[in-house]
Amino acid sequence: MRRVAVAGLGLIPVKEYWDRSAQDLFAEAAMKAMKDAGTDKVDSVYVANMSGALMQDQVNMGALAAGALGRPGLPAIRVEAGTASGGVAFHEAVKAVASGYSDCVLVGGVEKMSDVLPEYVNTALAMSEEQEYTAYTGVTKAGLSAMLHRLYLDLYAEPAEVGMMAVKGHDHAVGCKHAQYPFRMSIERAMDSPMEADPIHMMECSGVGDGAAALVLVPAGDSGVEVAGSAVATDCCSLAARKDPLVFEAVRRAAEKAYGMAGVKPGDIDLAEVHDDYTIDGVLSLESLGFAELGEAAKLVAGNATDKEGKIPVNTFGGLKARGHPLGATGLYQLVEVALQLRGAAGDHQVPGARVGLAQCIGGLASVSAVNILRRLGP
Amino acid sequence: MRRVAVAGLGLIPVKEYWDRSAQDLFAEAAMKAMKDAGTDKVDSVYVANMSGALMQDQVNMGALAAGALGRPGLPAIRVEAGTASGGVAFHEAVKAVASGYSDCVLVGGVEKMSDVLPEYVNTALAMSEEQEYTAYTGVTKAGLSAMLHRLYLDLYAEPAEVGMMAVKGHDHAVGCKHAQYPFRMSIERAMDSPMEADPIHMMECSGVGDGAAALVLVPAGDSGVEVAGSAVATDCCSLAARKDPLVFEAVRRAAEKAYGMAGVKPGDIDLAEVHDDYTIDGVLSLESLGFAELGEAAKLVAGNATDKEGKIPVNTFGGLKARGHPLGATGLYQLVEVALQLRGAAGDHQVPGARVGLAQCIGGLASVSAVNILRRLGP
Repeated sequence: MRRVAVAGLGLIPVKEYWDRSAQDLFAEAAMKAMKDAGTDKVDSVYVANMSGALMQDQVNMGALAAGALGRPGLPAIRVEAGTASGGVAFHEAVKAVASGYSDCVLVGGVEKMSDVLPEYVNTALAMSEEQEYTAYTGVTKAGLSAMLHRLYLDLYAEPAEVGMMAVKGHDHAVGCKHAQYPFRMSIERAMDSPMEADPIHMMECSGVGDGAAALVLVPAGDSGVEVAGSAVATDCCSLAARKDPLVFEAVRRAAEKAYGMAGVKPGDIDLAEVHDDYTIDGVLSLESLGFAELGEAAKLVAGNATDKEGKIPVNTFGGLKARGHPLGATGLYQLVEVALQLRGAAGDHQVPGARVGLAQCIGGLASVSAVNILRRLGP
Repeated sequence: MRRVAVAGLGLIPVKEYWDRSAQDLFAEAAMKAMKDAGTDKVDSVYVANMSGALMQDQVNMGALAAGALGRPGLPAIRVEAGTASGGVAFHEAVKAVASGYSDCVLVGGVEKMSDVLPEYVNTALAMSEEQEYTAYTGVTKAGLSAMLHRLYLDLYAEPAEVGMMAVKGHDHAVGCKHAQYPFRMSIERAMDSPMEADPIHMMECSGVGDGAAALVLVPAGDSGVEVAGSAVATDCCSLAARKDPLVFEAVRRAAEKAYGMAGVKPGDIDLAEVHDDYTIDGVLSLESLGFAELGEAAKLVAGNATDKEGKIPVNTFGGLKARGHPLGATGLYQLVEVALQLRGAAGDHQVPGARVGLAQCIGGLASVSAVNILRRLGP
């Protein structure tokens, strides 16, 4: 299996783009990534997109993406795994290079959410749950996460401890040019905001935004940033079928495999980008990734362990909450951010001396997860 | 790069399943494929599905598929490329084994079309065209193919010659247990049927049906059926942007690459399963695959060259027209059928001595295509 490296990266600010199409956004991020890589010799394209069918009446995004790059002809493949689409598409792009099928892959994610009314977003998210057993009840993704949040509060933590996941994200987003909400938010403001789905406050939820992010992957050499581990795993879709709904088994399994491939343990990770679409999901992700014992991640976050100078810096550009969460593109924003850190190019967000970084995303309520680990090569 | 073989295959008849979900259908085909392979040691799953978002309000089919197999936990990845989803998912599954990431992959396609009103099918197909430049005009997939059909009739062939693509498909479907329409149809019946989109008659169009088909892929040994070539390519989505709209460049490019990988020429192919969703698309596919010169495939089909005993047997179980066309599953039906032929297990449909077979599918009006070539190993 060939080793794989990140040769280029690009992203656009997460915000509302009223005058641009999804293809336009994809092309901008992709062109930036190719320019950064110093090559236009891309020989295949992967596209992560979750909700084009609902939001733009658009499928077949692979062909459209190749066309938007001005490269109709290229192999171009759309991968979809709910909000994990970005991380899963990256995983497929890694295989394309590892197998020798491709020597230079462009993998990009795009989501255009502001084209539709906000209530579509709940519909879009519910489509990742099983229609016949879960979504048909009318429960929203926020409603499902709220059940976990309630259980977590009953067993392990105070509301304000969980809420600190959002506060810390906003702290990290300050000064981030591609973040949708680059401002500080106090825990009081979070706790005083209206309930989205009790006990989840509105200011504990990621927002609605458009975005695109992309990376170029090539065979690895002796320097740069390599893909040290890459894995995807699933779990029962129904919360009721899970042994402990507070354990994200899909995350745990994917992480275990990715750690094994990279030859590292959670303690070796210098920074992590995790899926905090709701504060509780971020907290549970940290536990399932092995950064904290069950029930202890909220306290970890409420302390200083996940700060930029902490033991395990988390969501160093703001995470889903503050950088923004354009569904299918999110996993690739995370990976661009990790790669920036490992290059030492994260500016004010830099984690000093970062060598190994992890990106984790989930689809549905963690019925699928992708965990990718990047590592800086050379001195 | 590891060589890859087909270890197992399974399919269910294409028909209307009113009492079963898409997951149920997927699981049945997948279980058959695993039983046929004599293994349940599948370590990852690929799912081809085109229109779940529109027809079942369902995305995230990877996780659902793993669950339907009773194997929540497995890596499971949905691939979508319109009606080429099946062939593209197969391509990704091949890479998973070739790269060493997987040792035993289950790749299955499923589409459940009878849940929705027939007019949804036109909507579903239109979603593969670019909304902002093509689909918004209200043109249907049939309408687009009709433009090519009209041009082809003006330049190269008689209506009844193109119509023979459907007649021959029905001839081959007779006796096929998994075909949706296993009966003969005369050219008179085709030409007397109402216009779907002038000059395409209703009986030149594939129908609406549910289906699922699956294969198990493993590293290749010295016998069995290997994947000799596998490629995906794209083309401009807009017909207006193509140099010659009667040439399917995506098909031509994918075929050229797949032929190169397999070390074969069109003349070495013993049978081909091609994408005849409309007769004209089948005819143009044959030309772009190199089985006929531009403008000559309709005459080829109207003769006996594509019959079971002909020079290049085509759609030996009926093709999309007569076996059926469950969108995202179609590409995998084709591959199961090719593998059956190469095993010598095609019964009354057997092409004597078949050693090399090709499966080709398109998404949109050939804005994307997958071409996969299988070969029998050993004596």
